[in-house]
Amino acid sequence: MTTILVVYASDYGSTEKMAQAAAAGIVSVPGGVAVVKKAEEVTAEDLTGSDGVLVGSPVHMGSMDWRIKKMIDTVCSGLWMQDKMNGKAVGVFASGGGFGGAGGGVELTMLSMLNNFAELGMLIVPLPKITPEYKKGGLQWGPYGRSADEDMQHGGVGDEVLALTKRHAVHLTRAAAVLKDQAIFSA
Amino acid sequence: MTTILVVYASDYGSTEKMAQAAAAGIVSVPGGVAVVKKAEEVTAEDLTGSDGVLVGSPVHMGSMDWRIKKMIDTVCSGLWMQDKMNGKAVGVFASGGGFGGAGGGVELTMLSMLNNFAELGMLIVPLPKITPEYKKGGLQWGPYGRSADEDMQHGGVGDEVLALTKRHAVHLTRAAAVLKDQAIFSA
Amino acid sequence: MTTILVVYASDYGSTEKMAQAAAAGIVSVPGGVAVVKKAEEVTAEDLTGSDGVLVGSPVHMGSMDWRIKKMIDTVCSGLWMQDKMNGKAVGVFASGGGFGGAGGGVELTMLSMLNNFAELGMLIVPLPKITPEYKKGGLQWGPYGRSADEDMQHGGVGDEVLALTKRHAVHLTRAAAVLKDQAIFSA
Amino acid sequence: MTTILVVYASDYGSTEKMAQAAAAGIVSVPGGVAVVKKAEEVTAEDLTGSDGVLVGSPVHMGSMDWRIKKMIDTVCSGLWMQDKMNGKAVGVFASGGGFGGAGGGVELTMLSMLNNFAELGMLIVPLPKITPEYKKGGLQWGPYGRSADEDMQHGGVGDEVLALTKRHAVHLTRAAAVLKDQAIFSA
Repeated sequence: MTTILVVYASDYGSTEKMAQAAAAGIVSVPGGVAVVKKAEEVTAEDLTGSDGVLVGSPVHMGSMDWRIKKMIDTVCSGLWMQDKMNGKAVGVFASGGGFGGAGGGVELTMLSMLNNFAELGMLIVPLPKITPEYKKGGLQWGPYGRSADEDMQHGGVGDEVLALTKRHAVHLTRAAAVLKDQAIFSA
Repeated sequence: MTTILVVYASDYGSTEKMAQAAAAGIVSVPGGVAVVKKAEEVTAEDLTGSDGVLVGSPVHMGSMDWRIKKMIDTVCSGLWMQDKMNGKAVGVFASGGGFGGAGGGVELTMLSMLNNFAELGMLIVPLPKITPEYKKGGLQWGPYGRSADEDMQHGGVGDEVLALTKRHAVHLTRAAAVLKDQAIFSA
Repeated sequence: MTTILVVYASDYGSTEKMAQAAAAGIVSVPGGVAVVKKAEEVTAEDLTGSDGVLVGSPVHMGSMDWRIKKMIDTVCSGLWMQDKMNGKAVGVFASGGGFGGAGGGVELTMLSMLNNFAELGMLIVPLPKITPEYKKGGLQWGPYGRSADEDMQHGGVGDEVLALTKRHAVHLTRAAAVLKDQAIFSA
Repeated sequence: MTTILVVYASDYGSTEKMAQAAAAGIVSVPGGVAVVKKAEEVTAEDLTGSDGVLVGSPVHMGSMDWRIKKMIDTVCSGLWMQDKMNGKAVGVFASGGGFGGAGGGVELTMLSMLNNFAELGMLIVPLPKITPEYKKGGLQWGPYGRSADEDMQHGGVGDEVLALTKRHAVHLTRAAAVLKDQAIFSA
């Protein structure tokens, strides 16, 4: 059994749809179990009880949603103090209006989330270009669902990005299964 | 008159002390007016009424305090939609335990804050090494007050970092005064 | 007179076209003088003789072209030691295939270039969304010219991105003119 | 057998010493084979023939040494086009004068190197604080050897950082062994 926690925040439902696509990917892997939670609901036990974590956020002004950040400050930091998450797998995804057509700050958004998980000692699963559907919302750090067009009209994320997110979750689940109980960071 | 808004979040008082040092720097510049507020108290009017902004945060797991992030999501994003802050000056500072001796994630913390202010169209005032006291907590993006030693014992930020922060605020105030009413971004 | 140095590297001509558009913007500002150089040709005197710098690079695997980096290591680092560039203005731009549709690493590319210029004590001029043509290749840190489509077919950067780059250069030149001789960082 | 390629650039020998410490860590793992090369000497075959890569650079003005960048542009980018490195493990380390005491730009230096390896589809092995010697030069992304004191006097990296680097290489080798032949990114 490989349990993956999917944590997300969502304003208009785009990141939530991506979280659901991720869950579908997780359970498609033999032994994969998905636990999907909003950031406000996540407990320390949710994190320590998982073999891997997938975190999704809207891009807000070039960084993660404040609710994800609150979870990091109030839940993850305690686990860091106790060295509780070392050796698990982590991946990220994001959605955003993407005004400007150059990612709208998604890269730093993903990296600032990953900064936390690197501190927690988790191995990062990137998103390589070989992944089908990559060209419709791929970035090396994870899927990016563009939810608005260039005139900032909201249309929601497309099916290809959801398929890409599902695939990213498959990768993450496989990596978490492989890394489980491997004591990468033991003395 | 050059009005600088100092916004901060603080857990144990280190970032607050740096905010106060910044305020002392602002008012030491002829015409300088300092408005100091906790992130939770900042309104859109505080931001639009200022000529420059100085933002300070503790480093939490490699990114800004969630209260700063909440302000960005709920107050700054509206000003972005309305193009209200273009051409003002911005600077940042941070404090942190700094376990590991390599900044503890301060660089990405500062950059993820700056991502917001770059989107708002504000000119960024860095911290050059020529600044006196730089060697005791300088980073190119702003002062970094280390509040704990290498065994994570909390001792608070030192006087030199406070002096460095005061100096950074002087630079920021001068830049804001120079940039005021200059219409850098007009069509 | 406001002299702006435009430094670039280019493989297939896209970044070079953006550099030329930038030069057109610089000279369109009263008193604006453009000096355009390839990274390999830039000397310390080119940098110290300018009032502002605009740097453009292709995005290569998520960071700047190695020729830009060589200039930073071999020319800029000496100027840092001597504190020679403090208080000037800087801006960046980039081009890239952009496979994946989420910027392809442009954000970190721009930030890693800006890291150098922040260390040099230069004020950063961002690219706000109010800029006309922003929606066709704008990012908060500068214009991004996408030179290939989603199937990686190279078509070169479009006219709107060139217009956006010209506008960015206008902003930079204005900022450099305003900041000139202002001693922002004096003791 | 688990082959790890250690790639580095070095000016005064600090990063080279860290590369040698890394090699000692690699061969201390049963089945571990270390191949140590300067960036200029690395070929595509060195990369494809390895199960994992450890890359070390001096911090130069907040980003990697230009020789590392040249290798990325001229060797890695071709492997990206051909999807040749997916699923291997990667880690980073760096040295730097560290003037200012806040990392001197090491965080963005490491991230801009990792941007390349994420694009190559490699899983990133961070450096958790549980690692012995972490407090003497640890950062979540890898070991940071400070080679100069706060007055910029060069003294070279200390023994504790070398021990930390050795340990980081052990982690990387273990992760590479576990990930080998696991087809994390297969369709």
